[in-house]
Amino acid sequence: MENAVLITIGDEILSGNTVDTNSNFIATELKNIGIKVKQIFTISDEIETIKNTLQKAFELGDLVITTGGLGPTRDDKTKKALAEFFNDEIALDETTFNHLKTYMERRGRADILERNREQAFVPTKSVVFQNNFGTAPCMMMEQNGKLSFSLPGVPYEVKPLIKDQIVPYLQEKFNLNYIHTRIVSVVGIPESILADIIEDWELALPENMTLSYLPVGTRVKLRITASGENEERLKEQTENEIQKLLPLIEKNVIAISEDKIENILSEILTERKLTISTAESCTGGEIAKMITSVSGSSKYFLGGIVPYATEKKIKILGISRETVDQFTVVSEQVAQEMAKGCQKLFDTDISLSTTGVAGPGKGEDGKDIGTVFYTIRIRDQEVTSKLYMPHLERIDFMNFVSQKVIQDLIGLLVNN
Amino acid sequence: MENAVLITIGDEILSGNTVDTNSNFIATELKNIGIKVKQIFTISDEIETIKNTLQKAFELGDLVITTGGLGPTRDDKTKKALAEFFNDEIALDETTFNHLKTYMERRGRADILERNREQAFVPTKSVVFQNNFGTAPCMMMEQNGKLSFSLPGVPYEVKPLIKDQIVPYLQEKFNLNYIHTRIVSVVGIPESILADIIEDWELALPENMTLSYLPVGTRVKLRITASGENEERLKEQTENEIQKLLPLIEKNVIAISEDKIENILSEILTERKLTISTAESCTGGEIAKMITSVSGSSKYFLGGIVPYATEKKIKILGISRETVDQFTVVSEQVAQEMAKGCQKLFDTDISLSTTGVAGPGKGEDGKDIGTVFYTIRIRDQEVTSKLYMPHLERIDFMNFVSQKVIQDLIGLLVNN
Repeated sequence: MENAVLITIGDEILSGNTVDTNSNFIATELKNIGIKVKQIFTISDEIETIKNTLQKAFELGDLVITTGGLGPTRDDKTKKALAEFFNDEIALDETTFNHLKTYMERRGRADILERNREQAFVPTKSVVFQNNFGTAPCMMMEQNGKLSFSLPGVPYEVKPLIKDQIVPYLQEKFNLNYIHTRIVSVVGIPESILADIIEDWELALPENMTLSYLPVGTRVKLRITASGENEERLKEQTENEIQKLLPLIEKNVIAISEDKIENILSEILTERKLTISTAESCTGGEIAKMITSVSGSSKYFLGGIVPYATEKKIKILGISRETVDQFTVVSEQVAQEMAKGCQKLFDTDISLSTTGVAGPGKGEDGKDIGTVFYTIRIRDQEVTSKLYMPHLERIDFMNFVSQKVIQDLIGLLVNN
Repeated sequence: MENAVLITIGDEILSGNTVDTNSNFIATELKNIGIKVKQIFTISDEIETIKNTLQKAFELGDLVITTGGLGPTRDDKTKKALAEFFNDEIALDETTFNHLKTYMERRGRADILERNREQAFVPTKSVVFQNNFGTAPCMMMEQNGKLSFSLPGVPYEVKPLIKDQIVPYLQEKFNLNYIHTRIVSVVGIPESILADIIEDWELALPENMTLSYLPVGTRVKLRITASGENEERLKEQTENEIQKLLPLIEKNVIAISEDKIENILSEILTERKLTISTAESCTGGEIAKMITSVSGSSKYFLGGIVPYATEKKIKILGISRETVDQFTVVSEQVAQEMAKGCQKLFDTDISLSTTGVAGPGKGEDGKDIGTVFYTIRIRDQEVTSKLYMPHLERIDFMNFVSQKVIQDLIGLLVNN
């Protein structure tokens, strides 16, 4: 059990209506137990296509996981394809029907049980993993040492099925190789130069270790992966290699281990017992959202404000009207006053502020689209920066700026 | 030119480190010019795999678009595979090098031009579409009436290449069928019942029209797609079918046409000249972010606050300490006082508030994880609701609640 193949079924992905987040989640969970996703097929909901893709998938890997195509509506054909592929038939499964019944009753929807009855029809050779958060069950098929799991497509049904049922099942059934991953987050060096600097180190990595470059905004994440039988040995080996790497790029490393920037921030703020607040204009609440998406953030995040209208900046954060009149609302000066007002309002060690024009459509103040000023205030010290990113679409702009502000804050905290 | 196949290249997607958003964007853009994405392959950065996948892709469609695998680092092998597949060689392209030079100079990075020199090496038979937002160019290859475009993987480089260069190129080169899509957003009916209700209507749709069900949280989006030569005729035809559909589910339809719920909200608030503000605890700024992600939102969104710490709720929004002590901070009463305080602070027609426990880790007040109270206040009327979603992960919880709050608000506005 080394290689898995994922099949995402459904026109909603192919048509661009939905972003496929299931594959990302499943790949991460499998990676943790040493199973590598070799390929992902995203296909439409047609019986022949599903059968052909199952065939190709089993040529590439021993484990196939499909998501989507199991709902109660007309355009769901996975179950039929599954039965045909495995020379099986579909029949009502009593246990599954009882589970469905309990599920519907608990949600006060016993009245539509009959309408969902066909959800309890599964291939007769399948092993069912019951779905506690939806009506479509997960079906496992096994043939000649190859395994397939078919899940519904709704992300919050997929997650518990994978995490609580399928991963533990696979762990127990196979005696899997251990895998160990560390992420080194690097800022301030373009990817090409970084590659030059660490080339010799990379070429000298042991055979069981690999390196990947993952650029995120202006940050580059170096992912070091090691696989082998002995967990302790892998950890030791990875740590050794990181110790060799660090002297080469030390000044530019902002974190080792944690991946998402909001998690890195969480570690630092928690360790140093610092509190933080945000005053966001052009990022519209995204920085606050990123910070609060980390469990335990209430320990350090005291609050945020999105004073979108200029009048609210003046009223709630105490920006002076003169500053706005003199420099416009998208200016270094307003960013500074926002950070100061925010720090006072929420009474925190650190405050962050953003003011800019996300576009499209020129801002009220005549500044160009894509301009943002942001201030990072740590106690009585502050740094204000300007970014100009006219090529980014509105949402990308909001996300990019939010990433950059948190990244800069981490840089300041790490180097002080 | 009817069917396209997308190939996403790179281990960062397969390993679960990055969510593939490029495919979503490209599929949407192609759909608008009548090209259907038939399949998406997500593969690793290996020359043989890339070549094999190009082969399979061209069996499925006339147009292949690859993203990823064009950066300056070691693990990028797309260009080599491309040249081998098309029996070509890679050579320095002067025009591309000059473009790269200008690009680097403008960004003040002329010092590392040489390091990026190999980015200007392209297959000799390729037509280059210059990348104005990155160093890797887009290469088009053509053979026996089949077309391939190879793009870098960075989303903000992909978007302008697709939108400003490739789509216009395809539109001009081929005389494509028109496509027309309408979305009908339905709330308050489970998918299975909805399918029953509209079954006869669906079966009677003309041959050039298709229907898809796209569930988003508790909302179901019905996507009606029509294709044909005459744009006006398509619009008319779709409108006719929608007029037949509406009487069947009228009370549950919250919008026709716009897709994202924040866009639907934008239409309604703009039309009715209503202003809005938000006070978010457990959603951490996501509602504000959703609202402000729409261009032009500054017309109706005056501001938001994320009073994360209880003390800040009391200080800034004027929640009474007695209410918190008596009912705890996660309560109907606190949600109501938050909405009232928010409406006053920002002086808006509408205010939204959320207070809950996103988990994991029990909230400070002993309420269970997954509980949220939210209040929608429209002038002097308010509705407070409770949700209990213990199965959702923290970020999913924040997103789900945010969607639901906006959806409920739309429901209230539409039915009043």
